[in-house]
Amino acid sequence: MARLVPVSDPADPRLADYVRLRDVNLRKSLEAEHGLFVAEGEKVIRRAVGAGHAVRSLLMARRWAEPLSDLLDGLDAPVYIADDATMEDLVGFQVHRGALASLERLPLPTVDALVSGAAGRAAAAAAGPPRRVLVLEDLVDHGNVGAIFRCAAALGVDAVVLSPRCADPLYRRAVKVSMGAVFAIPYARMTDWHGDLGRLRAAGFTLLALTPDQSAVPLEKASLDGRVALLLGSEGGGLSSRWLHEADEAVRIGMSPDAMAAGVDSLNVVAAAAIVCHTLAQG
Amino acid sequence: MARLVPVSDPADPRLADYVRLRDVNLRKSLEAEHGLFVAEGEKVIRRAVGAGHAVRSLLMARRWAEPLSDLLDGLDAPVYIADDATMEDLVGFQVHRGALASLERLPLPTVDALVSGAAGRAAAAAAGPPRRVLVLEDLVDHGNVGAIFRCAAALGVDAVVLSPRCADPLYRRAVKVSMGAVFAIPYARMTDWHGDLGRLRAAGFTLLALTPDQSAVPLEKASLDGRVALLLGSEGGGLSSRWLHEADEAVRIGMSPDAMAAGVDSLNVVAAAAIVCHTLAQG
Repeated sequence: MARLVPVSDPADPRLADYVRLRDVNLRKSLEAEHGLFVAEGEKVIRRAVGAGHAVRSLLMARRWAEPLSDLLDGLDAPVYIADDATMEDLVGFQVHRGALASLERLPLPTVDALVSGAAGRAAAAAAGPPRRVLVLEDLVDHGNVGAIFRCAAALGVDAVVLSPRCADPLYRRAVKVSMGAVFAIPYARMTDWHGDLGRLRAAGFTLLALTPDQSAVPLEKASLDGRVALLLGSEGGGLSSRWLHEADEAVRIGMSPDAMAAGVDSLNVVAAAAIVCHTLAQG
Repeated sequence: MARLVPVSDPADPRLADYVRLRDVNLRKSLEAEHGLFVAEGEKVIRRAVGAGHAVRSLLMARRWAEPLSDLLDGLDAPVYIADDATMEDLVGFQVHRGALASLERLPLPTVDALVSGAAGRAAAAAAGPPRRVLVLEDLVDHGNVGAIFRCAAALGVDAVVLSPRCADPLYRRAVKVSMGAVFAIPYARMTDWHGDLGRLRAAGFTLLALTPDQSAVPLEKASLDGRVALLLGSEGGGLSSRWLHEADEAVRIGMSPDAMAAGVDSLNVVAAAAIVCHTLAQG
């Protein structure tokens, strides 16, 4: 059984991993510096541990120690026990899901390693090199990134590639919205926005760029044979013109002509991603 | 040109339509009592007016009067001009989108009128009786309802039917998330949760119930000929057993076996709705 350590001072330095969880800028620098991330809720914590992330510590109200006892039994990390008010003071909001865990990040694979199937995760290795890849350009909303990972994982996309400026899938809100799917699907972050699409093409991927432009090919009529990398742009601006230009084919989701006439001419990026992942899974 | 009326007191009774916009319980009773709703932002306000909703008043910072001048020219309603601090005090948050409008609700059609194509909206009348209908059971999150209306409108679903307990599509957040799609697609609210599915069947609809149960028929293999009403349940519990039982067929979205083994066994309701609407549009 892990050590249960009662704490009552939100300024206790042992709790520094959990400070101000909604302060995006603080969390970015703190998590990068220490190579950690925070998971929230029993189910998601179990998935993170199952995916091989080492536990730095846990923080929870005492009532959560019992339902998590099987997990705690195998742990060598401290389990901080606090009352709800201390936790709220520390993290900056009321923790509804009971338990928080601070976990070690794992080294991300390079794009090359990811697409060659050498990403190092057991699941990916077993399945062979990825055939269906989603490439996200500059999605900055953590909730959207988490929701898209959930779609991609549930519908059988093999891997996700993030542009250099994409939001972090291990940011607390992304992890939460993904329901832990960020641990179920391998991903890599590009280091070269200009050049890394070329590495995907060199690896044999057809690059399809999703656009609202209704002159593009309907998604379900595009060639989905072989390896396909589908490029998805940010909600506001869509894909950059550079990426649109570099893709092999522009594809669109068919919209209702009536709706377009009424000005309802786009989907939100999560809805679009869901349709894309579902269509890729059929191909 | 409408009258521009400077205001500076958040307690001014002429601004009562806009009070505490995030207080769901207050807004529910206030909006029901006065038959009003509030739209936010130039684009959405234009769509609401275009859909025939009479304007009770507008409220905005002075800088927004110019870009909206063509709309204001045709209005007989007061346009209250306030500074940002007054607006924030009144509505309870910082109004980023500049302009708010209080609009009159229109009488909703009955389920029978909706499915017979007599819903009274020009768009629906022109298109004939609806062939593709989404039926939402007890979705209580306004953001989800708005996002689903956006998917349904953009992808060509003809109408939406709400269970008696579903969230209000004209609640401010639903309107906003829908990007005004709640004005582009006709909808009705059931008054009889027990009996109104029977009215849809009597009108010739095949009732398909979406379920995560992987023993159900894959959605794309279901019969989508003729009139189809697709039943979608709430995120937490899914469809009630009564509705599941009453449907003609249970359908599912195909999930990745690997993901299901890893515990990623469901989609959020908006992602599921997007896939459903897209599949219905192909059929």
